[in-house]
Amino acid sequence: MQQPSSVGIVTPQTASFDTPIMLRSGAVLESYDLVYETYGTLNADKSNAVLVCHALSGNHHVAGRHGEHDKKLGWWDNMIGPGKPIDTDRFFVIGLNNLGGCHGSTGPASIDRKTGKPYGARFPVVTVEDWVETQARFADRLGIRRFAAVVGGSLGGMQALQWSIAHPDRLTHALVIAAAPKLTAQNIAFNDVARQAILTDPDFHGGDFYAHGVTPKRGLRLARMLGHITYLSDDVMGAKFGRVLRSGTFNYGFDVEFEIESYLRYQGDKFAGSFDANTYLLMTKALDYFDPAHDHGGNLSLAMKPARADFLVISFTSDWRFAPGRSREILKALLDNERNVSYAEITSSHGHDAFLMVDPHYHEVVRAYMDHISFSGEAP
Amino acid sequence: MQQPSSVGIVTPQTASFDTPIMLRSGAVLESYDLVYETYGTLNADKSNAVLVCHALSGNHHVAGRHGEHDKKLGWWDNMIGPGKPIDTDRFFVIGLNNLGGCHGSTGPASIDRKTGKPYGARFPVVTVEDWVETQARFADRLGIRRFAAVVGGSLGGMQALQWSIAHPDRLTHALVIAAAPKLTAQNIAFNDVARQAILTDPDFHGGDFYAHGVTPKRGLRLARMLGHITYLSDDVMGAKFGRVLRSGTFNYGFDVEFEIESYLRYQGDKFAGSFDANTYLLMTKALDYFDPAHDHGGNLSLAMKPARADFLVISFTSDWRFAPGRSREILKALLDNERNVSYAEITSSHGHDAFLMVDPHYHEVVRAYMDHISFSGEAP
Repeated sequence: MQQPSSVGIVTPQTASFDTPIMLRSGAVLESYDLVYETYGTLNADKSNAVLVCHALSGNHHVAGRHGEHDKKLGWWDNMIGPGKPIDTDRFFVIGLNNLGGCHGSTGPASIDRKTGKPYGARFPVVTVEDWVETQARFADRLGIRRFAAVVGGSLGGMQALQWSIAHPDRLTHALVIAAAPKLTAQNIAFNDVARQAILTDPDFHGGDFYAHGVTPKRGLRLARMLGHITYLSDDVMGAKFGRVLRSGTFNYGFDVEFEIESYLRYQGDKFAGSFDANTYLLMTKALDYFDPAHDHGGNLSLAMKPARADFLVISFTSDWRFAPGRSREILKALLDNERNVSYAEITSSHGHDAFLMVDPHYHEVVRAYMDHISFSGEAP
Repeated sequence: MQQPSSVGIVTPQTASFDTPIMLRSGAVLESYDLVYETYGTLNADKSNAVLVCHALSGNHHVAGRHGEHDKKLGWWDNMIGPGKPIDTDRFFVIGLNNLGGCHGSTGPASIDRKTGKPYGARFPVVTVEDWVETQARFADRLGIRRFAAVVGGSLGGMQALQWSIAHPDRLTHALVIAAAPKLTAQNIAFNDVARQAILTDPDFHGGDFYAHGVTPKRGLRLARMLGHITYLSDDVMGAKFGRVLRSGTFNYGFDVEFEIESYLRYQGDKFAGSFDANTYLLMTKALDYFDPAHDHGGNLSLAMKPARADFLVISFTSDWRFAPGRSREILKALLDNERNVSYAEITSSHGHDAFLMVDPHYHEVVRAYMDHISFSGEAP
């Protein structure tokens, strides 16, 4: 085996859709763009495609870099590439920015052709179900009838789950990582605090801040700081930052005192300078609304009945946002439906963020699962 | 035994201090007032006094009501009164608003005699140690040499702990409930998000919002919403609110969708309309700074060495803000010092807030402990 390497320099592409789409909310988008990247080569049968679904702050830039001097790798570069667990020597991997995003796909900051102005507050709420529909249309565009696998962590895992329900014959495998079949009240509560931070920022201007030449950075910064706490475990925060003081001594003031404050504020500032506040709102709403069991009297096993894919479900011991128990709910529903399912609970101290990190056990589980996926046209 | 009843109508009193106090930060307050309430009767020996220390948003109004038509009981009325676990037929119970508070004691909203204006940003940071000093001076004022017990939950428990270290000969018992010997990085992180919400609210005006005729309600509201999430357990939020929709159906918008959102926003609004933002900042800082082991190389057992009191330590199973493990750290340090200590881990689904609630097991533990406290001058 060669040493795993990067997919190298990649270039985003755009797919434009002019067939109107009716969203779950009843709203209709007349047209929209989806920006995407691909890694590896689509085989003649178009049977080796893997769709990677992104989480709250993710995007289409999953692996590689955008230029020779680009220091920032795609968000899942450690997982995807030649010789990596999702091996681009075998699979044709697609990353796609979800509708409503802020990285090139049509979203609140995009120009509404009807008005010539950014959508802003008029951009409709999008759901996991809506995303899966747009992704299915996108697959049609590429002539991909059936994905070898649909893969995602967190909110991305919810999309993989929804794929298995909505389009059971269009994926052979679903990899549902660090996900949950629905948010708890506590999960929704955290999301609502984040949303209220943005919605009540005076610079939000009811969602139409673009016209005012400002962005609701204060709110977005708070939302991200709060999010970060829920992505990390208490343990890893303790190990990484503990009660270490920035200047070694108490200053009895409101500037940074503890290193953890410095870290969080830095993360908040960085995010607030680059992410769209309306997209953040939409992403958290998609999380809140996702609940496939809702239309089945709360019975997830009934909701999962249409699924035909094989599944790999993965959770992380220290993830308190979507704890292992939440993955076991999914597992139980799949077993109730006699699906072929593998489950791994990875011992990790890194909390919810563990799904993005290099962990030998985790990566070997994904590698082993992906390695056993066969598709037509491949040499045995 | 008579049916427990309320202490009835109580009237706050004010104690004024003109001896300057140097705070931990090095800042000096020339004079200050402390507002307090008392319940029960101080005996001739002044040996039956119990000091109740309050938590982040608490105050001196611990039991009873302020008038015939006052519907709001003191915050710990279920615990304190005639025939209640802390029995005012035996004990003389004192509730006191901490220095820096916003309920009558000198705090940021008080007029600084030097300037004739509210202290605002110039009010110094106060620590748990500072509070204990002011409380000791207050005890001197009342001629109380030694408390039968110092009692507190959460941040109040930290004060009880500090009393046992700083004034070992001035309390016979310490009741340390739902507390921790110091905050974790995660605890500090939550506090910092709350603080940043307030500090970055344009209506905060660097802490001098009083002069502008506004209050940083947006920030304080967010801080309180976030706080509430950490006071409740995931389980109790699930049981109380679950994913119940406000209007029974998805509305795909940013108004209240789930009941939990309605609850949190209501709590946030109520608090933001009544609490002082600068006091909130100070209280969270006092939490952050508390760490008696800090000056002893992180060794809590060394820090607790001076303690002479007997202890009751109580934790609640579902409290994830100050989990039972945090109380066990205190317990261990006390055992290392061969203190007489009782410990109860109460099974409760109510999270950190459990310490404020009626729970038969919890209340019986406190009652049994308080009943066994004897003091001079009491008929056997």
